[in-house]
Amino acid sequence: MKILVINPNTSAAMTEAIAQASREAASPGTEIVAVNPSFGPLSIEGHFDEAWGAAGVAEQAHLARAWQPAATVIACFGDPGLNAAREALRGPVIGIAEAAFQAASMVAEGFSVVTTMTRTCGIAEHLVQRYGFEHQCRGVHGTDIAVLSLEDCPPETVAQIEDAARQALARDRSSAIVLGCAGMAPLCRLLTQRLGVPVIDGVSVAVKWGESLAALGLHTSKAGDYAHPLPKTYLGWAKPYGWSSE
Amino acid sequence: MKILVINPNTSAAMTEAIAQASREAASPGTEIVAVNPSFGPLSIEGHFDEAWGAAGVAEQAHLARAWQPAATVIACFGDPGLNAAREALRGPVIGIAEAAFQAASMVAEGFSVVTTMTRTCGIAEHLVQRYGFEHQCRGVHGTDIAVLSLEDCPPETVAQIEDAARQALARDRSSAIVLGCAGMAPLCRLLTQRLGVPVIDGVSVAVKWGESLAALGLHTSKAGDYAHPLPKTYLGWAKPYGWSSE
Amino acid sequence: MKILVINPNTSAAMTEAIAQASREAASPGTEIVAVNPSFGPLSIEGHFDEAWGAAGVAEQAHLARAWQPAATVIACFGDPGLNAAREALRGPVIGIAEAAFQAASMVAEGFSVVTTMTRTCGIAEHLVQRYGFEHQCRGVHGTDIAVLSLEDCPPETVAQIEDAARQALARDRSSAIVLGCAGMAPLCRLLTQRLGVPVIDGVSVAVKWGESLAALGLHTSKAGDYAHPLPKTYLGWAKPYGWSSE
Amino acid sequence: MKILVINPNTSAAMTEAIAQASREAASPGTEIVAVNPSFGPLSIEGHFDEAWGAAGVAEQAHLARAWQPAATVIACFGDPGLNAAREALRGPVIGIAEAAFQAASMVAEGFSVVTTMTRTCGIAEHLVQRYGFEHQCRGVHGTDIAVLSLEDCPPETVAQIEDAARQALARDRSSAIVLGCAGMAPLCRLLTQRLGVPVIDGVSVAVKWGESLAALGLHTSKAGDYAHPLPKTYLGWAKPYGWSSE
Amino acid sequence: MKILVINPNTSAAMTEAIAQASREAASPGTEIVAVNPSFGPLSIEGHFDEAWGAAGVAEQAHLARAWQPAATVIACFGDPGLNAAREALRGPVIGIAEAAFQAASMVAEGFSVVTTMTRTCGIAEHLVQRYGFEHQCRGVHGTDIAVLSLEDCPPETVAQIEDAARQALARDRSSAIVLGCAGMAPLCRLLTQRLGVPVIDGVSVAVKWGESLAALGLHTSKAGDYAHPLPKTYLGWAKPYGWSSE
Amino acid sequence: MKILVINPNTSAAMTEAIAQASREAASPGTEIVAVNPSFGPLSIEGHFDEAWGAAGVAEQAHLARAWQPAATVIACFGDPGLNAAREALRGPVIGIAEAAFQAASMVAEGFSVVTTMTRTCGIAEHLVQRYGFEHQCRGVHGTDIAVLSLEDCPPETVAQIEDAARQALARDRSSAIVLGCAGMAPLCRLLTQRLGVPVIDGVSVAVKWGESLAALGLHTSKAGDYAHPLPKTYLGWAKPYGWSSE
Repeated sequence: MKILVINPNTSAAMTEAIAQASREAASPGTEIVAVNPSFGPLSIEGHFDEAWGAAGVAEQAHLARAWQPAATVIACFGDPGLNAAREALRGPVIGIAEAAFQAASMVAEGFSVVTTMTRTCGIAEHLVQRYGFEHQCRGVHGTDIAVLSLEDCPPETVAQIEDAARQALARDRSSAIVLGCAGMAPLCRLLTQRLGVPVIDGVSVAVKWGESLAALGLHTSKAGDYAHPLPKTYLGWAKPYGWSSE
Repeated sequence: MKILVINPNTSAAMTEAIAQASREAASPGTEIVAVNPSFGPLSIEGHFDEAWGAAGVAEQAHLARAWQPAATVIACFGDPGLNAAREALRGPVIGIAEAAFQAASMVAEGFSVVTTMTRTCGIAEHLVQRYGFEHQCRGVHGTDIAVLSLEDCPPETVAQIEDAARQALARDRSSAIVLGCAGMAPLCRLLTQRLGVPVIDGVSVAVKWGESLAALGLHTSKAGDYAHPLPKTYLGWAKPYGWSSE
Repeated sequence: MKILVINPNTSAAMTEAIAQASREAASPGTEIVAVNPSFGPLSIEGHFDEAWGAAGVAEQAHLARAWQPAATVIACFGDPGLNAAREALRGPVIGIAEAAFQAASMVAEGFSVVTTMTRTCGIAEHLVQRYGFEHQCRGVHGTDIAVLSLEDCPPETVAQIEDAARQALARDRSSAIVLGCAGMAPLCRLLTQRLGVPVIDGVSVAVKWGESLAALGLHTSKAGDYAHPLPKTYLGWAKPYGWSSE
Repeated sequence: MKILVINPNTSAAMTEAIAQASREAASPGTEIVAVNPSFGPLSIEGHFDEAWGAAGVAEQAHLARAWQPAATVIACFGDPGLNAAREALRGPVIGIAEAAFQAASMVAEGFSVVTTMTRTCGIAEHLVQRYGFEHQCRGVHGTDIAVLSLEDCPPETVAQIEDAARQALARDRSSAIVLGCAGMAPLCRLLTQRLGVPVIDGVSVAVKWGESLAALGLHTSKAGDYAHPLPKTYLGWAKPYGWSSE
Repeated sequence: MKILVINPNTSAAMTEAIAQASREAASPGTEIVAVNPSFGPLSIEGHFDEAWGAAGVAEQAHLARAWQPAATVIACFGDPGLNAAREALRGPVIGIAEAAFQAASMVAEGFSVVTTMTRTCGIAEHLVQRYGFEHQCRGVHGTDIAVLSLEDCPPETVAQIEDAARQALARDRSSAIVLGCAGMAPLCRLLTQRLGVPVIDGVSVAVKWGESLAALGLHTSKAGDYAHPLPKTYLGWAKPYGWSSE
Repeated sequence: MKILVINPNTSAAMTEAIAQASREAASPGTEIVAVNPSFGPLSIEGHFDEAWGAAGVAEQAHLARAWQPAATVIACFGDPGLNAAREALRGPVIGIAEAAFQAASMVAEGFSVVTTMTRTCGIAEHLVQRYGFEHQCRGVHGTDIAVLSLEDCPPETVAQIEDAARQALARDRSSAIVLGCAGMAPLCRLLTQRLGVPVIDGVSVAVKWGESLAALGLHTSKAGDYAHPLPKTYLGWAKPYGWSSE
């Protein structure tokens, strides 16, 4: 089975790192196709960046119509463009924040999120509210580490994340950590060892969820709000992405 | 004072209709600058369209940096790109759904929303939840009228909306109607007369809110999540929209 | 247009200060009529005082039937008697807490309230819940400054409020401050300068909201819970305030 | 033990009926002192009436300082003035809506409220939200029976209430009925027989709760928001009710 | 009237202490029948213990069918088996956490819970959510005192609870304390004296609530989810507890 | 990898059917070990039955300590004993309701639950609230089909379930169906074909989730509320199940 992993930012290096993490999580027989948009920000660190990232996800989902992936993963913790991709595709589409919250809520009564820029905590908190994890998520904590500095992550940065996680566990009375950035995926194993509690990387959970739903034959429902987009004229740059009847 | 009104779709005719409704609401001395994105869907009728519309709002907000509008209105009922625009601009930015819900909650103990495509009800319901109006909004109702058919709205379409509103008032025990599409703004006066209850058009309320906040000197806070975007490289089409230090 | 501003306590000095703040916020052409009840507490600092203040608002709203103000503002942060006034009058009626929360939620992702007596924090917290701002309001903080001591506000008191606001911004990760007492209105400009974030005074926002709703022709819905009171015999002191058919 | 039962309206006949229902619920050895305010509406059927009723409760609670009742019951389903009375008195103060919701939630997984005027449903729904019974209360239903017509309740009115209750049980999948008006107390037994499910009259539950809390020595906490009112000057009619230090 | 008090653990000493506390709370004429299951844990300090405790409550409720108690109290703060007992019996069944939260919410605007093992805080927090007291309960605090060490409670343990309560009152801005364990019932009076705020022991409140509901003739509704269990074959140990038609 | 599937009732036939459904969902290389308690009800159709079922799950989880399954599934829609099993075991433990809600919320914006006895709807609704799916789950519907009649499911019963599902989709504006009973697992494929929307059987999703979490090395956190039970004496029947230090 082929799983599409969309990195909503345009950093090819991060796309590669996410592809790597996805392949490590995937079962034998699963092929990971990792892409990023042809336009937009090198990293997503706020609402403005995210608006472009969501359109970038729509672009990539539209392109994937040609081969209809068995499942699709949106690999940025704000889950940008998640519902746009659900409309565009038939296979299930999974956001990494959504998947991480679900997994965390099954292995711990309460969890904390450790993320990058403090200014994005509001985005994560809104997803907690939207998905309904307000009783399980006990705190979202910024470290003010730039997303791209995770690409070649020095020991001090790891130590800073570990430290934020320890403080969160104590202050929030939590017993698991959710990593609040796709760029943190490669640190998951190391942090698990150091912290002694479950550390959840949404990328790998979302890949497994995608394999699972696809294996069970569960598709995105086309009977309601996630029906295919209505056929429509798009103007300007976006002209090729207007939906045409199938 | 100059107020920017962004129509997130690319229909110039709808931009003009929204501009007209905005000017009717504006105080003497207020200049309305109505724009739409250079790219994207002719109308927004689902999540896929909305992803492009949000990027389009980001584009227009970025362009408006040059003249810093006193206030900005996002004139599509899903409030796409609202927070992106808040990051980009200093003046207050108001979504028409947000403004309509606020106004409705002051003139009625409960209100109902009447919107276009049923498949977008979920978008409006999510905004109700996000903004905190779950106790005041008693129902969101689709009419399956296409957004663009509102541009030159025939009597049958008006009658259909009126009928949906009457049913909503009775079924939901509501006492006001919120129009769930910027394209319905021109119908507000007529429906008010026919229904005998307050009918709220978010475009005009948002224009007044914008004038009000600007007059009071209230700007978007730059101390937290709505701080200016971080300076960043953007690739592809979106290259000009990467933020640069001011 | 004539806007009625009801100060629910009986301090004529505070009524005058509120009138002054209202006039500064009002547009040219708006006349502010500021009143207070003929009976009740000199300041409202708890539930017992508030019960009398609400009846006082009902008295003043009843008296204003004679001239039907274009809009009415209830100028006490607990919004006492708000719905009573909505029943009594046709024009829109706006509470200053409600208006302040709405404005704050548009200029900041999270805000904190700084109020007077700690014992009234529960009243403000209840309004936060009632109006649906639990995700935007991140804290309500008392300063234990007596309401009447704001009338002739010495520098130490200003400093105390500024200090409480700074602590709230940091502790709550907020980016705007709502002033939790009509008596703080005159301090709004000074605190804005000192704190560098939006400081919202509900009195001035409510006046602008009132002008706006009135300009748009939006009245209180008489179709539901805010219909005029039922005609009824009142006994004792309150005899003149029983409703008679119009 | 002496229990004060305050009828917030000024109908002496209803005060007497409530006194009667209270005495039937009370244990031997409990004396019921039933009063009503010296001013205000003959019945409470909306927000305007309720504002006066709350001040009337404050008046009666102030007068009761002289003898400090063992417990106090506020006998109107909107629980007007409840917190004002809690500030004024040392013994526990119980609202009949609050007590009825509590009792109903222990004898049924879901209950419905049947009340008088439809326009007051919003008041009851707000109490449901405020007290936290949104998962247990499955509906609030108006009958548009005038409160005072319950005083000498003809068989047709009983039948109308019974009918509304039956419909509510079926439509809401409820298994108990809460009577939404103190004036319905005398009908409780009859409706219980006819409906075959628990029918809860808040007056009798509140009397029992008052006896219980008093017997256990539980007083209103004076350490927080229900501390005695601050000493204060009151003007006009209300002059005698300004708090003076004890 | 005979009230059944079920201690869900198997400590006969604790059953006796709970019986004693119940008798002190009961009115003259009320007979307390205190029992514990024939199987299961000596104390309940987590989810695993609680699962057995709930079955133990079901056992005892089944046995009580023979004499149908006027009311039944489940005397463990997690309210284990509460709804099972409601199905089995006709008289009202009251959980001590539920009763304690209700009483606390009437004597204080906010309360805190002080309990035994920190690991059980999640159980109490879940009940707060389930019963709807999230706005009144401001914190649940563990002391890591073992339940059985309360049986013969030394002064240091009392001091430790008192200390935790003082901290909770200050940190949570609470004005009452709920004791989060049936084993703390004997300390209620002493802690009330020392803390100067209402201290609520759920056992005694639940006994009074039981007497009250029984006196008012309120039974568990048999029309809905609390109808008698369906007749059914039970296997193994539990064979005698399968329901047979009455 | 070996996955334990616990059927909380004592019907060997249903355990076998659940084992069969689990094996169909499992990946090659996964071994399903399906068990049921040695005691308790033949089917779970209410709170009383469920209390015994939860203890039965605790029994089976305790027995599985010997071989520590890679993951464990609780195969009854009320998720009885879920947290008890989480305390007892190291591998992840997944409830079928929890897993079904999670999967449904990823393939549809709104879903409905179709279950067996109407009297158990409250149990499912409570799980919806507890897990945080109140915005995604739009209705829980009973069919009053007895659980054991699903074992050898005649066409009329299938038709009845299909009919209830169709009504739910229309009435709730849902676009997916969750099967509210482990005994319905064998009907999942057929109903998917007939209804044309995703039909989710929690048993198969939970098996995939278990495989996924185990493959990712995610265990139940032993740092908080799901730590191993405290060592403790158990009496009577349950004596062997008291925890002893590992």
